[in-house]
Amino acid sequence: MIYEAIIHEQIRDYIYPINSYQLAIRIKAKKGDIKECILHYYNMQKTTISNSSKVRMTCYARDKRFDYYEVLIDTGERTKYIKYFFEINDGINVVYFNYYGISLTVQEEGNFQYLISNEKDFLQIPHWVEESIFYQIFPERYYDGNKENNPDDVVEWGSSPTRENFMGGDLEGIHKKIDYLKTLGVNAIYLNPIFEAPSNHKYDTMDYFKIDKHFGDIDDLRKLVLVLHENNIKLILDGVFNHCGYYTRQFQDVIKNGEKSKYKDWFYIDQLPVDTDEINYECVGYYKWMPKLNFNNEEVRDYVKKIGRYWIEEANIDGWRLDVADEIDTTFWSEFRREVRSVNPECFILGETWIENKSMLRGDQMDSVMNYLFFYAVTEYFAKNTIDTFEFDSRINQFLGAYSNRVHHSLFNLIGSHDTTRFLTSCNKDMDKLKLAAAFQLLFIGVPCIYYGDEIGMEGSNDPGCRGAMNWSFTERQQNLLEYYKRLIHIRKKYRALVEGKFKSIYCSNENLVYAFVREITRERVYVILNNEDKINEITIPLLEKYDENRVIVDIITDDEFQISTLQNEKYYNCDIYPYESSVKINIESYGVRILIVN
Amino acid sequence: MIYEAIIHEQIRDYIYPINSYQLAIRIKAKKGDIKECILHYYNMQKTTISNSSKVRMTCYARDKRFDYYEVLIDTGERTKYIKYFFEINDGINVVYFNYYGISLTVQEEGNFQYLISNEKDFLQIPHWVEESIFYQIFPERYYDGNKENNPDDVVEWGSSPTRENFMGGDLEGIHKKIDYLKTLGVNAIYLNPIFEAPSNHKYDTMDYFKIDKHFGDIDDLRKLVLVLHENNIKLILDGVFNHCGYYTRQFQDVIKNGEKSKYKDWFYIDQLPVDTDEINYECVGYYKWMPKLNFNNEEVRDYVKKIGRYWIEEANIDGWRLDVADEIDTTFWSEFRREVRSVNPECFILGETWIENKSMLRGDQMDSVMNYLFFYAVTEYFAKNTIDTFEFDSRINQFLGAYSNRVHHSLFNLIGSHDTTRFLTSCNKDMDKLKLAAAFQLLFIGVPCIYYGDEIGMEGSNDPGCRGAMNWSFTERQQNLLEYYKRLIHIRKKYRALVEGKFKSIYCSNENLVYAFVREITRERVYVILNNEDKINEITIPLLEKYDENRVIVDIITDDEFQISTLQNEKYYNCDIYPYESSVKINIESYGVRILIVN
Repeated sequence: MIYEAIIHEQIRDYIYPINSYQLAIRIKAKKGDIKECILHYYNMQKTTISNSSKVRMTCYARDKRFDYYEVLIDTGERTKYIKYFFEINDGINVVYFNYYGISLTVQEEGNFQYLISNEKDFLQIPHWVEESIFYQIFPERYYDGNKENNPDDVVEWGSSPTRENFMGGDLEGIHKKIDYLKTLGVNAIYLNPIFEAPSNHKYDTMDYFKIDKHFGDIDDLRKLVLVLHENNIKLILDGVFNHCGYYTRQFQDVIKNGEKSKYKDWFYIDQLPVDTDEINYECVGYYKWMPKLNFNNEEVRDYVKKIGRYWIEEANIDGWRLDVADEIDTTFWSEFRREVRSVNPECFILGETWIENKSMLRGDQMDSVMNYLFFYAVTEYFAKNTIDTFEFDSRINQFLGAYSNRVHHSLFNLIGSHDTTRFLTSCNKDMDKLKLAAAFQLLFIGVPCIYYGDEIGMEGSNDPGCRGAMNWSFTERQQNLLEYYKRLIHIRKKYRALVEGKFKSIYCSNENLVYAFVREITRERVYVILNNEDKINEITIPLLEKYDENRVIVDIITDDEFQISTLQNEKYYNCDIYPYESSVKINIESYGVRILIVN
Repeated sequence: MIYEAIIHEQIRDYIYPINSYQLAIRIKAKKGDIKECILHYYNMQKTTISNSSKVRMTCYARDKRFDYYEVLIDTGERTKYIKYFFEINDGINVVYFNYYGISLTVQEEGNFQYLISNEKDFLQIPHWVEESIFYQIFPERYYDGNKENNPDDVVEWGSSPTRENFMGGDLEGIHKKIDYLKTLGVNAIYLNPIFEAPSNHKYDTMDYFKIDKHFGDIDDLRKLVLVLHENNIKLILDGVFNHCGYYTRQFQDVIKNGEKSKYKDWFYIDQLPVDTDEINYECVGYYKWMPKLNFNNEEVRDYVKKIGRYWIEEANIDGWRLDVADEIDTTFWSEFRREVRSVNPECFILGETWIENKSMLRGDQMDSVMNYLFFYAVTEYFAKNTIDTFEFDSRINQFLGAYSNRVHHSLFNLIGSHDTTRFLTSCNKDMDKLKLAAAFQLLFIGVPCIYYGDEIGMEGSNDPGCRGAMNWSFTERQQNLLEYYKRLIHIRKKYRALVEGKFKSIYCSNENLVYAFVREITRERVYVILNNEDKINEITIPLLEKYDENRVIVDIITDDEFQISTLQNEKYYNCDIYPYESSVKINIESYGVRILIVN
């Protein structure tokens, strides 16, 4: 056992309250080192170490370096005055681990402490989020519902997308496609920016309090939200607050009035006057059209919080996706959260970040993040084949290991967005690979988000290619893909294990590119097998429950049945942390998916 | 090299901005594993990995499990869009470490990222704090400056302290002892609670807006602060906000009016009416006289923030020590900080916690914490001899490893408080041991805080024993100890290395109980040697600079001189991370202290 790889700290990443009486405690160690880990804990004011409670911790994730263990303790009252330490058995020795380190005996001194659980520190993620299947819409390119509000220079629907051109999509267009969305089965929409802005993408906001006239007006948004809600579909907007557009009233005022402008401290300007040639002001990505707002200025903070409230109060939106959330200071997000949650306690707060970002997800800032770690792993494994199954599994488990279990269910899992090459393009138009990746996305733990058009196999390289006009006349091949998406969405909704269930990876091999995992809740397990190569594979996967000899497991897509075996002489992947009780041999076609349930 | 013990995360504990252009980056690894660690970094928007900058990281702490490395990079502009990874050499192999793990070659994918440095995320600790030598006063027991405001049942000054008795100390008493404080050399005071409360300790507040009448009134406080400030002495008050007293107006209103009370949601009451026998409400430490305030109620939050502002605005205090800070939710402290800092940007915010508490010290909550980890280590090593020198050094370095380097200089290091046994009592009245511990406290990195009376060797077991009346007629032995404290305080103030300098431990041995460390800034090093046993020791310590053969090092207390040796054939403690250039052999008397400077 490597003592230096045993990690627990008295911080939220390792100990966090679920509610007033339930507390989650975590530890990680070198992969394979822990055979058994027991948490000992006691109330330091009411009792002594000799009356400690003992609970066995379970492994909830394993990546190539670490095993991650967690246990939920129930204190039966407001959790407080907890002292605790860990008993770790590596199969040879038993050691005790506390703040002062490793000992061979239980120690009185140096045990970890947890003071008290307070309401504001609970992870309060709206429950509707984990029930959602999101659909991301780039409004200018979805559907032109109202020709009259089109820009003068609109090009033909379906033209090659450029950074400059307009095609006429608008809010009414989305409104007219609600039936399509319902049929697809999604129940939440993330809309790219819709406030007044000169560009087609509208990340260069001019007026945060006005819908862009080419998209409609506030009444169109109100109507859209109303009808979406009638159809049980939520809507979140894109909040682009780190920077505004060059043509924002405030920035223009500074350009014009310099030192006299009352907005001169709204931006980071090296020296007035503003120089737009040499660019003497801070802007996002060194891009002059997007000056960064100065959040060290209380006026800016108040202004943005006001925007946050306004669209909830005025249009009843269900949340905010926050653009480049990791470029604004962390304390602002606590204030923003407080503000918008006071208006709508069920408001979803989703941060854009491209990295593992635990600090955003400790309960005081975001409910979830756009999970680009998921995107990278899926793209590299399924589309590009640049990583093997072990590496894929490790990357998936690495972020599961890092993020709290409550957050797992709200992770915003995407395989493409307005900022990436479309998935089908990444896999060289191979529809089978897209289908495989989509299956993984829709059956994995967390909230899947389908980027508009992926469900009919749209193609496109990164911006502007990935922002093409939605193609509304489907070929048979497109229709088939759409049906495939519908079927998977239907399956996700049907099985609670696919929404609420834990995720455990149970099959990786050096001999093929097959990957299998299980999603499980107490009384239901769904096994998913993905064959990421162009040949039929035959494999045996472990089952985590014991069955009678005569039981079969059924593929819910094909109705194929497989005989369960009760033999237990094999060593399966991760079977040291997820012990198996029986197994089943199955075949799987090239790029096939099997979803298995024991009837 | 143990790969699983190499730890870096994209969170503030491992990467944090110093200011807009300086960024600190940290990594830790198994003790002794790293021979050299190079940080590679580049701006992902302006350049590519092949143009990375490379900087060598240095070890800033070593405990028994880990070495802690840090480097400060200077980006020359607002730091942004940084990608980075680590090159680690263990003396045999060189590996590269990024988010995806360890590789034998530089990787394009998976490098760590840091987006941008924003003002609100900087560690903004008032600079006066690190210049301070604090003195803690328990007001009821310091000096009775005004007999007229004494409680009726006051007992004789110097009576044995009980949980109930009163001796008459007050604000005027402190005022009258300012000359004493000046002569001692302290320049900041932490005052235990002074607001209206029935007890002698006043942790059971009745009225947060009123000075207890037995201590004086608001004008006495104003005058005290004014005169202290004239004498360059700061003052911080004790903010007891987690709970109030049973006799607080608000709690009494709930007892009286039950459901009709407008304060019924200010507390956690299981079911009204309040039952003070069965105790059906949340209280601190299950102690009925201190009902916990409900910080899930916005009125309570606003109320406490108002108190925070009030005493700064009205009496010009310099900061708050926040009682049981880790029992209030973390988001509240961000709000409180924002509030009090808006009134006084130099306001010091000090949290009580008894454990390692990194989450409080990330810049958005506290400036510092009462460093009970220091207290435990010093008590166990110097007073009780329950740990050896290696363990002592490890414990000291463990919290230095955890806390940011900026925080090191503001850590509130104590060897006793109103909540502990007095140090002299812990070491069985052995004045030599107290002197040794005091030397360590006053020469260590961070802010020392002397608990009133320790400087004259007062004794007392934990509460109420440690809260005895200050003895103002000193015996010769007491006077000697006082002179010793004065001398050390004088030395601390004289050498900038003792305030601004880094801390490095350079001597531990299994053969004796001698401990040596150095405090260093660029042009000054102070070597400190402590002999924690009752015999003369002769040891050789390494010096971190190269000197000529004829140079000597001088003990600034005794003026003893020691010849520096330039021989380099020894292996000293930690000389792999702090390479030595020369050495010196010294003798040190039993329980002696040597403070050495190369002239």
